[in-house]
Amino acid sequence: MKTLIVFAHPEPRSFNGALKDVAARTLSNLGHEIQVSDLYAMGWKAGLDGGDFTGERADPDYLDLSREQEHAFANDSLSNDVKLEQAKVAWADLVIFQFPVWWFSMPAILKGWVDRVLSRSFAYSSGHKYGSGLLKGKRAMLCLTTGTASSLYTPSGVDGDLHHILWPIHNGILAYTGFAVLPPFAAWMPAQVCETEREQYLRAYAERLSNLDQVQPLYFHPREDYDDNQQLKPGVKARSGVQWNPRAEQTFEQAAAAYSELQ
Amino acid sequence: MKTLIVFAHPEPRSFNGALKDVAARTLSNLGHEIQVSDLYAMGWKAGLDGGDFTGERADPDYLDLSREQEHAFANDSLSNDVKLEQAKVAWADLVIFQFPVWWFSMPAILKGWVDRVLSRSFAYSSGHKYGSGLLKGKRAMLCLTTGTASSLYTPSGVDGDLHHILWPIHNGILAYTGFAVLPPFAAWMPAQVCETEREQYLRAYAERLSNLDQVQPLYFHPREDYDDNQQLKPGVKARSGVQWNPRAEQTFEQAAAAYSELQ
Repeated sequence: MKTLIVFAHPEPRSFNGALKDVAARTLSNLGHEIQVSDLYAMGWKAGLDGGDFTGERADPDYLDLSREQEHAFANDSLSNDVKLEQAKVAWADLVIFQFPVWWFSMPAILKGWVDRVLSRSFAYSSGHKYGSGLLKGKRAMLCLTTGTASSLYTPSGVDGDLHHILWPIHNGILAYTGFAVLPPFAAWMPAQVCETEREQYLRAYAERLSNLDQVQPLYFHPREDYDDNQQLKPGVKARSGVQWNPRAEQTFEQAAAAYSELQ
Repeated sequence: MKTLIVFAHPEPRSFNGALKDVAARTLSNLGHEIQVSDLYAMGWKAGLDGGDFTGERADPDYLDLSREQEHAFANDSLSNDVKLEQAKVAWADLVIFQFPVWWFSMPAILKGWVDRVLSRSFAYSSGHKYGSGLLKGKRAMLCLTTGTASSLYTPSGVDGDLHHILWPIHNGILAYTGFAVLPPFAAWMPAQVCETEREQYLRAYAERLSNLDQVQPLYFHPREDYDDNQQLKPGVKARSGVQWNPRAEQTFEQAAAAYSELQ
């Protein structure tokens, strides 16, 4: 197995750094190949802009990003940093995103990797999204740290259910481009817990990575569950954990229950 | 009223640019003061890192971002670009975030504005979050464009409910720091619709901005609805539109219905 770890923390000795190192070591010991993109160390440019297109533009006077991404991909004129990262993604069977949750999402530098690397024509295109996304056949997983306790990330917790918070990433980035999405590994407020608990997190993460093939991906409805308007068909019970289907007279709670049975 | 528009699109003549211009013109005509932070034009640095702290560090050997943000704020040694933006936020009664939805979220450059400007001690601190967030008394609103139709952003749509997708921003960034959060204004796939529809969007947006005081903010539960573990108390019916309260034997659908009654 070939694994790309995209790592987004400015302090190499942070707990995020430790999780990244455990992943690299564990997977290497199992005989897998690893590449790491250490975005801060690379000085990764976060802003998607005209600089991503190094050749002649499709329209030099007006920057239509979708159009220029298509055009540059067809002409092999995306900027070099983007091409190198796309080559790593193309090489990988598994992509791990290692980051601290900042503002209920990923750090800007990692979002900038997504904005620029998962470009139109490379990761998705017209008619190629979700089940037919261009990265189909690969797996992806988030490994994240939080600043607050797991109990706050529940349906009735002040921060809301972790599955809701990660839906834009799990569904909107990873499932969208065709990845099978493994459940996230979360280390809850590692800066606040004792050394023993931090070691337990690292051990649990190594254990998870050693048994990845037994981990069921998160459930997303296949295309045939949707009608021509891309709505769940009336007979379909929502099982994604976030969607629910009023047309099936199904409550969100029933959807959530169906989802937990899948775990 | 004083309004700060934080604008995140690399093409000034984009529809995002048009929405930004309509907002500036409409609010100016009403006699309000406006400032615009055009992040791409400013060359805004997206990555939060050690460069944000220009004075002596609390710990020069290990980068603990929360600690350094606190330390630098207390010593007035945050980097100049961050200080200038914080001064604009402090000045504003209303902050409008103008951006295209990229990957179910904001562009990296705007996320980098959030990561760096809404720093610890300036926007929140220990014991000062949500209802007691340090930006309490101000209002915030998202004005966004999408690449796909509104019908996909529903509970049974393939992209999921827009309120779920925006929860990490609405709750996790804006409500978290104390803003009253106005409902978002969405222009659905302006690149795909005809000129007449685009003009309708601009008119509707001007109309919305002309009547802001009649717009009810989104509902977030006040602190007294939560117990000491920051969970909704058993008797409380969830009304936030995303949370639901199993301990009140309340389904998400009931919560959603209660939420719509508030609109």
